[in-house]
Amino acid sequence: MTLLMFDFPSPSPLGKNIREKISAEEGKVFVKTFPDGESFLRVENSVKGRDSIINATLFHPNNWALDLLFLADTLKAQGAKRVGLLAPYLSYMRQDKVFHPGEALTSKTFANLLSSYFDYLITVDPHLHRYSCLEEIYSIPTRVAHAAPLLAQWIHENVQNPFLIGPDSESLQWVQDIAGNSPFLVLTKVRHDDGYVEITWPSLETLGTKTPVLIDDIISSGGTLLQAVEHLKGLNSLSPVCVIIHPLFEENSYQKLQAAGVQKIATCNSIPHPSNQIDLTPLLAQAIRSLSLP
Amino acid sequence: MTLLMFDFPSPSPLGKNIREKISAEEGKVFVKTFPDGESFLRVENSVKGRDSIINATLFHPNNWALDLLFLADTLKAQGAKRVGLLAPYLSYMRQDKVFHPGEALTSKTFANLLSSYFDYLITVDPHLHRYSCLEEIYSIPTRVAHAAPLLAQWIHENVQNPFLIGPDSESLQWVQDIAGNSPFLVLTKVRHDDGYVEITWPSLETLGTKTPVLIDDIISSGGTLLQAVEHLKGLNSLSPVCVIIHPLFEENSYQKLQAAGVQKIATCNSIPHPSNQIDLTPLLAQAIRSLSLP
Repeated sequence: MTLLMFDFPSPSPLGKNIREKISAEEGKVFVKTFPDGESFLRVENSVKGRDSIINATLFHPNNWALDLLFLADTLKAQGAKRVGLLAPYLSYMRQDKVFHPGEALTSKTFANLLSSYFDYLITVDPHLHRYSCLEEIYSIPTRVAHAAPLLAQWIHENVQNPFLIGPDSESLQWVQDIAGNSPFLVLTKVRHDDGYVEITWPSLETLGTKTPVLIDDIISSGGTLLQAVEHLKGLNSLSPVCVIIHPLFEENSYQKLQAAGVQKIATCNSIPHPSNQIDLTPLLAQAIRSLSLP
Repeated sequence: MTLLMFDFPSPSPLGKNIREKISAEEGKVFVKTFPDGESFLRVENSVKGRDSIINATLFHPNNWALDLLFLADTLKAQGAKRVGLLAPYLSYMRQDKVFHPGEALTSKTFANLLSSYFDYLITVDPHLHRYSCLEEIYSIPTRVAHAAPLLAQWIHENVQNPFLIGPDSESLQWVQDIAGNSPFLVLTKVRHDDGYVEITWPSLETLGTKTPVLIDDIISSGGTLLQAVEHLKGLNSLSPVCVIIHPLFEENSYQKLQAAGVQKIATCNSIPHPSNQIDLTPLLAQAIRSLSLP
């Protein structure tokens, strides 16, 4: 039987593309809110005995997290064989340590919660900093898809003479893999107590005719990238390009990067955004095939 | 050690009154939202080895349900002996049956979810229709506090010559208990497929000099009560009084009842509202004492 694949909480171009690629059936769920603020959901497909997966990119998930659990539990109650979660962007990965007594370790609570309602998790390059892998906090099978080859390909096809710049020393191996034969460097980040992030550049007199390509796994308020763009101006470099996996673009950081003179911003479609130029469809179709199809 | 009692997601007069009554320590939690929409929480009390309870009336809970779970899990992670939930109003009790194939049985999913994060639950007159008791869906100890004696007392003190009118045949025993020596009747409700609720009155020529007192456990959009008020007009009764436990008052039903000529509306403070005249503090203080204090 074909896989049943839901887009939640709303349809996404990525979901549609993946469904077509793997010939999955479109999951249909009717959701309404009662006057008292409670949710009503009704699944409109036949579910019994079937493999199902919910495509829910976990961007600003607080308002609909409960609905997501309702949907997963309803699929189980109706006899779905398995209920997987495809979260192209996986949230709650950044509070990965109790920095001060009393702090919620939301990464762990969130992971336990999802592990209780889903049979497996597929995501793209989660923000692993203090955790070395998702298995440290998720108790269900997980599959991490890596966007690096897609980033490398996009840069190869769209940037002449690239010079890759990675966000921090931890990203060294990742940046090197994407750079291939192109030159690259990584910045050094020091995060101060007041939240200010200081970045240090290796000695670099000039970039000559090379195009700086700032790469990162995620952009939220964009502080680091904006600092880097300003620094490049001081070096009289060519106008830089930004290539990012997860485009959160909080606090108008997209507009700020454009205003700062960035010539191109390319992101993956883990979160729908006008800058999406790197399609995760083949990557995620492959991950779903390997994990969820017989 | 004193009980640690949190008001969540925001302070409530009821919470403060109960804390003072049972000499509990005020739980303090700092909550903020990151630019990417994720929550940050920090508990500011010393928690280790202590009994704790979160007072969270579950009115429109979808937007902050995840934060509630974060708080409960954080208290556990910090070594709280027990984490109780005081939900003066308990939500998700109305979808208590799969009426059509594919529907989410949200009452059950919600109950399972809370049962995973809390050690016990205290609430006031939950809306039990097809379930006979909370234990059918909650797997943790529960304690139901009954507001009936408080309603009876309020009516006794505020209404001369009352004639009680209950919402449906199921409420017969409840209405009789509240009425004491006063006359009463109950309506008959027929819920049609299109959502329209038809109410039927027993034969009743006149109420004379008696004041009709419409009582119900909950008011949401107020359709039934408004129909009853209109019917009473046809009987040329005195202006009616409404006494309700849980004042949801969706869709401006409070204003509609006032406009329809209701002389007084009294509600319990399970949900903060200007109509709160019946204080649940003694009832809930007693329930907490009996369940959560050594």
